Amino acid sequence: MTLIVKKFGGSSVATPEKILNVAKRVVNEKKPGDKVVVVVSAMGDTTDDLISLAKDVVGNSDINDKMYSREMDMLLATGEQVSIALLAMAFKVLGQKSMSMTGWQAGITTNEMHNKAKIKDINPERVFKELEEGSVVIIAGFQGNTDDGDITTLGRGGSDTTAVAIAAALNAEVCEIYTDVDGIYTTDPRIVKDARRMKEITYNEMLELARLGAGVMHPRSVELGKHYGIPIHVRSTFTSDNGTIIGEEYTNTMEEKEFVIRGVTNDMNVAKVAALGVPDKPGIAFKIFSALASKFIDVDMIIQSVRNPDEHMIDMVFTIKKEDIAQTKETLQDLGLNMSIDENVSKVSVVGVGMLGSPGIAATVFGALADADINIEAISTSEISISCLVSADKAKDAVKVIHDKFFPNN
Amino acid sequence: MTLIVKKFGGSSVATPEKILNVAKRVVNEKKPGDKVVVVVSAMGDTTDDLISLAKDVVGNSDINDKMYSREMDMLLATGEQVSIALLAMAFKVLGQKSMSMTGWQAGITTNEMHNKAKIKDINPERVFKELEEGSVVIIAGFQGNTDDGDITTLGRGGSDTTAVAIAAALNAEVCEIYTDVDGIYTTDPRIVKDARRMKEITYNEMLELARLGAGVMHPRSVELGKHYGIPIHVRSTFTSDNGTIIGEEYTNTMEEKEFVIRGVTNDMNVAKVAALGVPDKPGIAFKIFSALASKFIDVDMIIQSVRNPDEHMIDMVFTIKKEDIAQTKETLQDLGLNMSIDENVSKVSVVGVGMLGSPGIAATVFGALADADINIEAISTSEISISCLVSADKAKDAVKVIHDKFFPNN
Repeated sequence: MTLIVKKFGGSSVATPEKILNVAKRVVNEKKPGDKVVVVVSAMGDTTDDLISLAKDVVGNSDINDKMYSREMDMLLATGEQVSIALLAMAFKVLGQKSMSMTGWQAGITTNEMHNKAKIKDINPERVFKELEEGSVVIIAGFQGNTDDGDITTLGRGGSDTTAVAIAAALNAEVCEIYTDVDGIYTTDPRIVKDARRMKEITYNEMLELARLGAGVMHPRSVELGKHYGIPIHVRSTFTSDNGTIIGEEYTNTMEEKEFVIRGVTNDMNVAKVAALGVPDKPGIAFKIFSALASKFIDVDMIIQSVRNPDEHMIDMVFTIKKEDIAQTKETLQDLGLNMSIDENVSKVSVVGVGMLGSPGIAATVFGALADADINIEAISTSEISISCLVSADKAKDAVKVIHDKFFPNN
Repeated sequence: MTLIVKKFGGSSVATPEKILNVAKRVVNEKKPGDKVVVVVSAMGDTTDDLISLAKDVVGNSDINDKMYSREMDMLLATGEQVSIALLAMAFKVLGQKSMSMTGWQAGITTNEMHNKAKIKDINPERVFKELEEGSVVIIAGFQGNTDDGDITTLGRGGSDTTAVAIAAALNAEVCEIYTDVDGIYTTDPRIVKDARRMKEITYNEMLELARLGAGVMHPRSVELGKHYGIPIHVRSTFTSDNGTIIGEEYTNTMEEKEFVIRGVTNDMNVAKVAALGVPDKPGIAFKIFSALASKFIDVDMIIQSVRNPDEHMIDMVFTIKKEDIAQTKETLQDLGLNMSIDENVSKVSVVGVGMLGSPGIAATVFGALADADINIEAISTSEISISCLVSADKAKDAVKVIHDKFFPNN
């Protein structure tokens, strides 16, 4: 007997026809004795439609205001509830016993942080019972219940998180994430047509890729998979290709091991901040970055450059996310600093656990960019990644030339 | 302090603008210290839209099939959940503390008859707590939860039933039902423009009117109000008129008492069945009507007529609801009986507790119809009503002439 959790996103269940196709696929792939749990998101644009209704109600007020957060969860949780009911019906049409469960029916308890709740506990008793009785159990993604019985939602990447958490609670063999791409690629196939699909990738590499701009998987679910040792299998809803398995280490093929670099990413959601003429005295960096940290502004790629020593001034350059620009400006102004902000930048990165044992990766990256006449405005590195800040209009070229170097087209 | 339950139907909350209007009205009418619970239905056409999605999923199968009933409830319950969330937000926009609750959060437990569940119990603890803390509590109508934690819906008239049941559980002063008509009329104002709105009507009269085709209130909620002694105040969502109070007895004005008849109804959902040449032997009526009863077919207006005594045959005429025609045919065929079925009939009725002490009401009804040359095909009476079966194309005329007799236009 195998216990499998399968998660289908909103585009996979966008119409009644697609819902039926999901049910057909699950039934066809199910072997006798297999126990299958399906986690689903809201149909297609449902969540956007609900948000738009809420906006019409609150008018000039902001739906993200904390006073609305409980009610927004009450509202948005209906999207997944519609999907699970329809999908359960689709299984019955095919003669497969099935039962839908909301987050709370599936025993998912969260903390009380409405709109971005964290799962505290899962009591899978009822899910087990229904699986034992031969049902495919369909669970609403993205939602849970507080101890007080209030409905919560898990925020971005929430349905993937539900799927991996349920897989952990049930000690499932694997958590399959069905999506509109057919796996994890060495880079965005829309930018580089020779991008290769990987058969395997480690949790750590996947987390680093996600942090550096790869959009396929939200880091929360990958972290959860890593924590509980649940392999995550990313597959296409629309083809039967093998996809990519995210796991603790490589198990599979020589082919996978031959590339030290696992992916090249491009993150456009970056702005370069230059705080100019900062007085060069001890503690100034601490002052700046602790002020930013207190407002939860993520800072990366910090470069401190000394001007003429006689001036006793330094320039401090760093990157932030674009959504933090206004708050960053305010914070630096409060500190009495002048600044310039450049939004026309992009962060291009290479990721791979293999680089730990392979010197010269950085040199290869810089060489590829130099050959293509692309200027590097800042550099940052982690154990398993190297990132270069480049002009936004050069970003795609940068991805191409770096990818070509590490994955030569033969 | 007054505790009031107010129920708004789907047309009252069909758009974000209407939802805001409901919130404004409730806030404006609320006196300091009042505790207010609002029960709402799904927005406008939401339920129909959800049913249509389900139909697309099941294809040639029937969504009313018992195997889908649990999932249909899971699906349909989302409609009210959307309304309560948006309405709770609308109150907050106006600065009024509010909290939405699904059926289960409001402590509503039902039996397990999906699609037409009955409320078993209400534990109003949390509702009380939130009212104490100054919130307007907004409860999803039409839904509850089984002891196993499954979502159920209450079937037709479900939101009214929720409202009256909650009012009973909270021992509310009154349950106000806001609807698109402004009260209970002596007959359908679309048929008779002189129809009068009643200030008061008794539970029993209202139940009889509903049974005989008046559509404003579903009998279930009226029965519940009667059982728990909760006055039901039917009012317009769109005007501030006084509406009609349904209660145990008249409390108000002489004016109300002067009319022995309280309403004239017209029920088009009737078919006349004639079982012809039935062998005239003991037990034959029992055989026919117990066979129909075993299939839950409601029979009314039974007339047994004897043919020529030498033939030892009788004709048996009765009325059924139109939706029961196919099953009735089958049942009579199984008994080896010939029949004819006439769908072009309508049941016109007068209702009023006053007729108990007023002889001659029946004569007045028959006289009015005779004067207008309308033939009576069958008659049935109860303690507080008289019904006449007439040709469908004469039904509106029948209502008019009877109404004119009892409510002369002066």
